[in-house]
Amino acid sequence: MVDGDSGVEVARRVADLTLDVQDFPQPGIAFKDLTPLFASGPDFAATIDTIVGHYGPDSFDVVAGIEARGFMIAAAVAYAAGVGFVPVRKVGKLPRKTLRETYALEYGEATLELHADAFSPGQRVLVVDDVLATGGTAEAALSLIEQAGGVVAGFAVLLELAFLEGRKRLKPRSVHALLTV
Amino acid sequence: MVDGDSGVEVARRVADLTLDVQDFPQPGIAFKDLTPLFASGPDFAATIDTIVGHYGPDSFDVVAGIEARGFMIAAAVAYAAGVGFVPVRKVGKLPRKTLRETYALEYGEATLELHADAFSPGQRVLVVDDVLATGGTAEAALSLIEQAGGVVAGFAVLLELAFLEGRKRLKPRSVHALLTV
Repeated sequence: MVDGDSGVEVARRVADLTLDVQDFPQPGIAFKDLTPLFASGPDFAATIDTIVGHYGPDSFDVVAGIEARGFMIAAAVAYAAGVGFVPVRKVGKLPRKTLRETYALEYGEATLELHADAFSPGQRVLVVDDVLATGGTAEAALSLIEQAGGVVAGFAVLLELAFLEGRKRLKPRSVHALLTV
Repeated sequence: MVDGDSGVEVARRVADLTLDVQDFPQPGIAFKDLTPLFASGPDFAATIDTIVGHYGPDSFDVVAGIEARGFMIAAAVAYAAGVGFVPVRKVGKLPRKTLRETYALEYGEATLELHADAFSPGQRVLVVDDVLATGGTAEAALSLIEQAGGVVAGFAVLLELAFLEGRKRLKPRSVHALLTV
């Protein structure tokens, strides 16, 4: 689940700095609030470095982030690896020609979009998000990236909620979580 | 407007890699699409490095980004400077106790939120966004940060649309744009 000693330490910090907020955004949902982790400079940096280190900077050509919390991690991963950043956005936000996927959420339904020209054919895309829950959002994002000609080099999250089995839906793509609970 | 030779070069790249998309999101609006800049690894890195270099990494304690495009730049700036990242979000997205500001947009109205405990008193906050237009969003974000006890160390954007005079609304805070048009 983790990468050696530094992976163990980062996993512990992710656990320590994640707040469980009950009944948000809806009754019955326990929201994982990672803002304390992001607000700590050393922990934010260690999180980003651990993701880049897990894959190695030569194993992907570009990083994609999923709106909106995914942007906070993915953009920093792209910078740390010296590659570009591509946003997978909620519907209506991208101004040019897009591809779209609609999917079910734990609470409702949503649509993601990606610029149709976001990738060169065969470009290796590391996809980064904050939390892997049911995997609906991730599945839609990975599908869009593949439709746009990208090759998913991996899907990295800070926190995986294993009981929701999101990882199964994403097969055969490789999933890496800094912390699995 | 720019910082020496590297600032001139970055400003040129911002200009070259910004697409004007007419009538988005509404008729009469010319949207500035920075996704080509973000998608280029060297240009994304140079953009982030220029922002950090303009302020110097010791002049701020934390970076705040404004949802959602601001996150893409601000999170990378935070990582590059070795400090934490705090999101200023659209209403209903932050799970704990927040402060709120409602403001007018070029096209409509919106509300921003910030966790009430986001900053320690006196913490110096560099605020980063993509585009400075009328300054309504920025003014609301800076006001929230000050209400939460932060001290605005600066407001940095990639692109400033000078004819909309947003900079005036943000006085006396210091505004830095990589490119002013």
